[in-house]
Amino acid sequence: MSVSIEIKVRYSETDMMGIAHHSRYYVWFEEARTELYRKSGYSYREMEKMGLFMPVIETQCKYKKPVTFEDEIIVTAETSYLKGATHIVNYTIIKRDTKEIVAEGMTKHALANKELKPINPRKVFPEILKAMEERM
Amino acid sequence: MSVSIEIKVRYSETDMMGIAHHSRYYVWFEEARTELYRKSGYSYREMEKMGLFMPVIETQCKYKKPVTFEDEIIVTAETSYLKGATHIVNYTIIKRDTKEIVAEGMTKHALANKELKPINPRKVFPEILKAMEERM
Amino acid sequence: MSVSIEIKVRYSETDMMGIAHHSRYYVWFEEARTELYRKSGYSYREMEKMGLFMPVIETQCKYKKPVTFEDEIIVTAETSYLKGATHIVNYTIIKRDTKEIVAEGMTKHALANKELKPINPRKVFPEILKAMEERM
Amino acid sequence: MSVSIEIKVRYSETDMMGIAHHSRYYVWFEEARTELYRKSGYSYREMEKMGLFMPVIETQCKYKKPVTFEDEIIVTAETSYLKGATHIVNYTIIKRDTKEIVAEGMTKHALANKELKPINPRKVFPEILKAMEERM
Repeated sequence: MSVSIEIKVRYSETDMMGIAHHSRYYVWFEEARTELYRKSGYSYREMEKMGLFMPVIETQCKYKKPVTFEDEIIVTAETSYLKGATHIVNYTIIKRDTKEIVAEGMTKHALANKELKPINPRKVFPEILKAMEERM
Repeated sequence: MSVSIEIKVRYSETDMMGIAHHSRYYVWFEEARTELYRKSGYSYREMEKMGLFMPVIETQCKYKKPVTFEDEIIVTAETSYLKGATHIVNYTIIKRDTKEIVAEGMTKHALANKELKPINPRKVFPEILKAMEERM
Repeated sequence: MSVSIEIKVRYSETDMMGIAHHSRYYVWFEEARTELYRKSGYSYREMEKMGLFMPVIETQCKYKKPVTFEDEIIVTAETSYLKGATHIVNYTIIKRDTKEIVAEGMTKHALANKELKPINPRKVFPEILKAMEERM
Repeated sequence: MSVSIEIKVRYSETDMMGIAHHSRYYVWFEEARTELYRKSGYSYREMEKMGLFMPVIETQCKYKKPVTFEDEIIVTAETSYLKGATHIVNYTIIKRDTKEIVAEGMTKHALANKELKPINPRKVFPEILKAMEERM
């Protein structure tokens, strides 16, 4: 499953190089991932309230073209792997007008409880896992 | 009571104007306030673990001179008011080398429980309040 | 003139208190202010390219109700003062669903050149100033 | 060459999971990298003033253990590759008290001019490149 969102780059997301700081891309990835979870049937906010947390255990990004203040970008998040207590989401960012690829990235997540200890989601949250597996 | 800390401005704290973004000053204020609490006898981390939270209810800052990447600044936090379930901390930022005043600010805080409901700290946390009143 | 924008609170904008960090409100204010400038006829990005900068010289915010991850808020920016080389913008944030007021704030700006020295915009950028005065 | 710096995790760097947000690690990496450049003979601020920019073209991080507010960490940056117009820096973050490894990461950089076009640094900045090659 994949989800795309539109973002306009904020002034505060730029740095003195005149472009968006490389760390902000992960914030945009997260915003797209949030919509991906929601589309799978459970919002991430609900999942955390139920006691299911998905801490990030790995991140990766390649930056192809700089983006800057007021640039409009489209961030697409797509599930690439979902098994047991781990899942991986891939991302592509393009410029809305030119469709040029701006960046490509990945985040890897554990499934954990509130204390961030790994859990067997199939046992603890069988319904959420089923929804994620079927739809993500 | 007052506490001073030294900070070197980070690249990621600048924006495309080439200077530190105005929102970052509140992050620096918070870092100085954290040391102020610690010096009063209880670290803020301990206080939150005990169930005492100090959400921000007002902020204010005047920016006199811009600062930028690798500038070294001294942030001073000083208690200006502490009574009942409210306290106010004032801040001054100067450049380490020239001693010029860079910014002056204020934050106002409530004392609250984990659900962020106001509490009477004199009843619930008499010892912390005593320490704060005596030393802050 | 006033402009309203919709924002959904990002996960990265929350802190360990479980609510949006107080410094982020200024980022949201800035996003609304950007739209205010655009509506006045010149985008802020264009203005900076032409050599007109509007550094922040004062900020203020009162926080009425906490907001958290996935909360939908409406940020309204309204010009309250525009004269010579200074202008002031006021802000209100409400929750989209309940219309409750979440925060109220203010930012004050200088008009300056690239070196952030104050300028007389009436002389240097008469057209931009006219547009701002007529529409903002 | 390698450089280590000490950082205390800021409240604003945590998120509602109660731990530092994964995007902040790149900010810490950058702070260590800044010291690495400085130790090589030219501060990054000087280099940018001279017209040499080092935009990030790839980032990577593995998160082993969460860190949170007031945790003291040691971030080590070490040059792993420096050739032509590209260089790579590796990072390790450990907890100051337990020496446990918290995270490991990498950033890859281009050498570019102010317009962020790739340059041949050997021609344009022979002295800086020599210093970097000898010391980094």
